[in-house]
Amino acid sequence: MRRYILTITCPDRIGIVAAVTGLIAGHQGSVLEAAQHGDLETGRFFLRIEILAESLPAGFGPTELAAAFEPVANEFDMQWSLTDTDRPKRAVLFASKEDHCLADLLQKWRAGELECDLPCVISNHEDLRSLVEWHGVPFRYVAVPPRDSQGKEAAFAEMDRIVQDERADVLVLARYMQILPPTFCANRLGRIINIHHSFLPSFAGARPYHQAHDRGVKLIGATCHYVTADLDEGPIIEQDTRRIDHGDSVDELRRVGRDVERTVLARGLRWHLEDRVLLNGHKTVVFP
Amino acid sequence: MRRYILTITCPDRIGIVAAVTGLIAGHQGSVLEAAQHGDLETGRFFLRIEILAESLPAGFGPTELAAAFEPVANEFDMQWSLTDTDRPKRAVLFASKEDHCLADLLQKWRAGELECDLPCVISNHEDLRSLVEWHGVPFRYVAVPPRDSQGKEAAFAEMDRIVQDERADVLVLARYMQILPPTFCANRLGRIINIHHSFLPSFAGARPYHQAHDRGVKLIGATCHYVTADLDEGPIIEQDTRRIDHGDSVDELRRVGRDVERTVLARGLRWHLEDRVLLNGHKTVVFP
Amino acid sequence: MRRYILTITCPDRIGIVAAVTGLIAGHQGSVLEAAQHGDLETGRFFLRIEILAESLPAGFGPTELAAAFEPVANEFDMQWSLTDTDRPKRAVLFASKEDHCLADLLQKWRAGELECDLPCVISNHEDLRSLVEWHGVPFRYVAVPPRDSQGKEAAFAEMDRIVQDERADVLVLARYMQILPPTFCANRLGRIINIHHSFLPSFAGARPYHQAHDRGVKLIGATCHYVTADLDEGPIIEQDTRRIDHGDSVDELRRVGRDVERTVLARGLRWHLEDRVLLNGHKTVVFP
Amino acid sequence: MRRYILTITCPDRIGIVAAVTGLIAGHQGSVLEAAQHGDLETGRFFLRIEILAESLPAGFGPTELAAAFEPVANEFDMQWSLTDTDRPKRAVLFASKEDHCLADLLQKWRAGELECDLPCVISNHEDLRSLVEWHGVPFRYVAVPPRDSQGKEAAFAEMDRIVQDERADVLVLARYMQILPPTFCANRLGRIINIHHSFLPSFAGARPYHQAHDRGVKLIGATCHYVTADLDEGPIIEQDTRRIDHGDSVDELRRVGRDVERTVLARGLRWHLEDRVLLNGHKTVVFP
Repeated sequence: MRRYILTITCPDRIGIVAAVTGLIAGHQGSVLEAAQHGDLETGRFFLRIEILAESLPAGFGPTELAAAFEPVANEFDMQWSLTDTDRPKRAVLFASKEDHCLADLLQKWRAGELECDLPCVISNHEDLRSLVEWHGVPFRYVAVPPRDSQGKEAAFAEMDRIVQDERADVLVLARYMQILPPTFCANRLGRIINIHHSFLPSFAGARPYHQAHDRGVKLIGATCHYVTADLDEGPIIEQDTRRIDHGDSVDELRRVGRDVERTVLARGLRWHLEDRVLLNGHKTVVFP
Repeated sequence: MRRYILTITCPDRIGIVAAVTGLIAGHQGSVLEAAQHGDLETGRFFLRIEILAESLPAGFGPTELAAAFEPVANEFDMQWSLTDTDRPKRAVLFASKEDHCLADLLQKWRAGELECDLPCVISNHEDLRSLVEWHGVPFRYVAVPPRDSQGKEAAFAEMDRIVQDERADVLVLARYMQILPPTFCANRLGRIINIHHSFLPSFAGARPYHQAHDRGVKLIGATCHYVTADLDEGPIIEQDTRRIDHGDSVDELRRVGRDVERTVLARGLRWHLEDRVLLNGHKTVVFP
Repeated sequence: MRRYILTITCPDRIGIVAAVTGLIAGHQGSVLEAAQHGDLETGRFFLRIEILAESLPAGFGPTELAAAFEPVANEFDMQWSLTDTDRPKRAVLFASKEDHCLADLLQKWRAGELECDLPCVISNHEDLRSLVEWHGVPFRYVAVPPRDSQGKEAAFAEMDRIVQDERADVLVLARYMQILPPTFCANRLGRIINIHHSFLPSFAGARPYHQAHDRGVKLIGATCHYVTADLDEGPIIEQDTRRIDHGDSVDELRRVGRDVERTVLARGLRWHLEDRVLLNGHKTVVFP
Repeated sequence: MRRYILTITCPDRIGIVAAVTGLIAGHQGSVLEAAQHGDLETGRFFLRIEILAESLPAGFGPTELAAAFEPVANEFDMQWSLTDTDRPKRAVLFASKEDHCLADLLQKWRAGELECDLPCVISNHEDLRSLVEWHGVPFRYVAVPPRDSQGKEAAFAEMDRIVQDERADVLVLARYMQILPPTFCANRLGRIINIHHSFLPSFAGARPYHQAHDRGVKLIGATCHYVTADLDEGPIIEQDTRRIDHGDSVDELRRVGRDVERTVLARGLRWHLEDRVLLNGHKTVVFP
C-alpha cells in the first residue's frame, strides 16, 4: 500500500494535532498510523503520521499535499518532511572486512524487509566484493591509506563524490573501520547511521569487547546511533544487550556480540527508513 | 498534575482524530499524550488521550468536557469513557496464601507507584491478614468451603456484596486460588484482572510449573489477563518470560516464576489503572 | 586448540566424576571445561568434559583414550561418546524457499562460527540454489510431489540415500516445509534438529504466527528441538521470545519472528556441534 | 536437605578435580552439584561442589571433612571454604529511606527464598523501622551527620561495632545512601554487596537515572557488585537491563529501574548466600 509519511517537529502548543489531522481529513485522507511526543524539557513537539495514498482524491499526490500543508506548517513554525513510500530512500552501505552486519542487511534487503534502494556498497577492502555483487549491488572499493593524511583526505573526497553522485539519502556504517573526518559528517546530521559494538556510553572507543571482558560485566550490548563529529557520542537510535558469563572469552563476546550488532543495526536502519526516528537535540524520538 | 483521560472505541472512518482533537483544542485543552490504533481486521478504531486539566477554562471540568464531547461521540458511534486522575479507581485485591504478588502490589501502592484506592483485600485464608493490615488496608476473610456448592455460592454472593458495597472499579486476583463462578464474572468483563503462572496459551490449567518442567521448556513465563467465563482464555494484557535450565527443579521454577508473576501483574494493573488497556474482542489494545 | 570431548550418561552413583577425572589426570590430560548434572527424578547422571589434546602423551590419541576409558565406562554402565574437534561433524541442511535461517547458518559457517562440514544442502525447491552454491556448498534438489504418497516415499528414500552417502552426523531443518516420514526419523533420534516458529508448546502445528496473532499474545518465540515421530513434541534444545504489540500484523510477527528463529536455530545447532546437548528422555540437558 | 558447600580457588594444574572428587567419593560423599572454571588469563582455577551431608558416614561432619580435605588443599595451594547449609550466613542489611529493595529482600527472606539469618537492619533514617520490625527483624538507627567528618567517623565506628557484635558474614547495601569510608570496607572484600542503579560502568556516581535520561539511552539497568574502596568499581556480581523509550521521564526511569534494582540485588545476594560467587581479581566467577 502506497503511503505518505509526514513527520513534524515544532514548538509545542495547543491545536497542532487538530490542525494537521483536520487538514488531512479535509482531503479525505485516511490515517493508518499516528504517534506523537511532547518533550516537557525542551518544549518541542514531535508528530509522525502515515496517510494512505489512495484515500486522497485523484491527482492529489505528494506535491499537492505538501502545498496544502504549507500554511499549517508555517502557522506552527514546523520543521517537517513528507515522504512517499513509492520513492524508497537510497542507502549507501559502508563496510570493511567483517561481514556479519553487511550480510544481514543484504539478506533482509533481498527478502524485502528493508525498503530502500542500495545504489552501492563502499569498502576500504576488497574482501566483501563477491558477497555484495552476488546480491546484485555495485561494489566500490576506495582504499584509505593509513598514516597518510593527504591520501585519507583524497579517499573521503572520493567517497563524498560517490555518495553525492548516487544521491544517497542515508549512509550506513556496517562495521566500517575508518573514522569519518568531520568535513564528511558535516551537513549529514541524522543521515549517517553507525553500529557501535558496546552498550554506550559504556566502552566507547576502541576494542569494546576487550574492555567489557576486562571489566567483568555480565551483559554485553550494541548501540545504533547517528554519527556526529563527537565519536560515539551521537544520538542513540537503538540498543540491546545479551547475557554473558565468566567463562566467555573475548572471542566468545565477539561472537555473541555480532548477533546483537546485526539485530540492532537492522532495527535502527528500518526505523530510519520508515521515518520513525526524529532528532531531538542530541537524543532521538523513535516511534515504533 | 491532574489529567482527564479519554478512551474511545468506534468504527474506523475518516476524521475521528481531527474531530476529537479539534474539540479539545477548541476549549484550549492541552494534550499530554495521545495514542491510536486502527485494527484492519475488525475495522475498529481505538484512541486514548490525556488532557491536562488545568489547561481547560475555569469551571470546565469533567462533566462539562463530557457534555461537550457527547455530540462528537454520537456522530462517530463511539463507546467511550472519561476518567479523572483526581478520582483514582477503587481496586479490590483477592489473595489466598501466597504473598509474593500481593506484597509487591501493596509495596508499590504505598510507594505511590499504583494510583488507586484499596478499599479492602478479600481472602479465603487468614494467612495474609497481618501483612494487609500493616499496610492500613482492611482485610476481609471470606471462607470458600471445598466440595460444597451451596457454601461456595454463598461465599461468592458475600464477595459480590463486598465488591459492590466498596464500589470497586476493578478486581485483582493476586494468586487467588479459587475459580470465580460465571455469575460472578458476568457483567465484569474487562474489570477482573488475573495473573496466570504460565506463558499462555502454554500450560493453562493447574500446576503450570509442573507442566513446564515436564515438557522441558527453556523459558517460563507469566500472563496477566482479564477474566472471562473461559478459564485462562481471557484477553491478555501483558506477558513476560525468564530463562531457566535443565538443572532447575519445579521449586526453582516457582521461585523464578514468582518474580515474573509479580512484575507482570503490577505492570498490567498499572496500565489498567491508567486506562491504557482497551478491549478488542478477545484481545487487548495496550497503549504503553 | 584441538580438544577431545567426552560426554557421558549413566545411572547416578558415587564416584563417577572421581573415576573419570582420575583416569584423565592419570594420563596428564588437561581439562578445559567440565559440566555435570544429576537428574533427581530419573536418577540419571550427565557429564561433559573437554580435554586439551596436546596435554596427553604423544601417541595417546582418541583411540587410545577411548580404549583406556572403556573399563571405567563399563564399571558405571555408561552411554558415552568421545569426539575430536579435529574431525568436525558433518551437517546436511534442509531448506525450502525461505532463506532467513539458511542464510544465517551459511554466513556463520563461512565466518567460522559453526564448526562443521557442510557436505550439501537439500531442498524441495530450486529457489535457494544460487545462495547455497555461492557459499561453495553443493545443492541437491529433491522434489517432493504433493498428494502423491508414492512419490513422497521415493523422494525421502533419495534423501535418505544422500544423507547416508554424505555420512551426515546431523540433519538441520532450516525452515524445511515438509514433514519427515517416521521411517526417515527412526534411528535418527537426537540427530535431526528443527526450528519451529513458535514458543512451544504454544502454537504447535501450522501457521503459528497466525495463531499467535489470533490469540493476542504479547510475546512471540521460536523453538529449536530434536525431531521425533511426534510432530513438534521432540526434546527442546533452545527457545527465545521477542516482544510484539497490538499494532503488529501477522506479517510483522513473521518479520520479528524470523530474527528469533535464526538466532535460536544457530544457537541450538552450535551447542549440538559442540556436544553440549544430551538427551534425557523427552527432554535435554544443555551444558552451555 | 543439608549440604556442605566446598569452594576452591587455586593455581590451575592437572588433577585438581580428580583429587577433590576422589577424596569425597572415598568417604562415600554424594555430589549434588559441581561447577568449575579455569581462567586462561590468570591461570587460576575455581571449583564449587555441593555434597549431600547425609551421604557421608555418621560422625563425619564438616569438621571431619575439612580435616580430611586439608592435605589436598595444601598439595594444590588452595584457598578454600567449606560451609554448612545448616548454619546459614548472617546478613546485616543497610537501608535509608527508599524501601523497594529492602521490602523485596524481607519478603523473599520471610518466604524462605533467601536462606540466611537477619540479625538486624541498620539505617540512617527512621522511615523504615516499622517495615523492618513488622518482619520481626531488629532495626538499628545510626544517624550519619552530614558535613561532620568526626560525627561520620563515630557513626561508622558504631556500625562497625554492631556488625561485629552480630557476627555478620555479609553486609547488604539495599539502597543505603551513604558512602562507606575505606576503613569500614577494608578487610571486608567480597563481604559487602551493593546495588547501583545503573548498568555499570555507564553512569557511575550520583543520579544515574538523570544521566541516563540526558544521554538518551534506550535501556536502563542495575548492577549488583562487591564494594571496594573505589566507588562503583568493585567486582560485578549481576546486572540486568530493561527497555525504556523517549517518552519516559526521569521519574518513570526510576520506577522501571526500581524493579530491575530489586531483582538484581536479590539474585546477587542469593548467589552469594549459596557460595556461588568467587572473586577473581576485580572480577567474579558466578556458578549459577
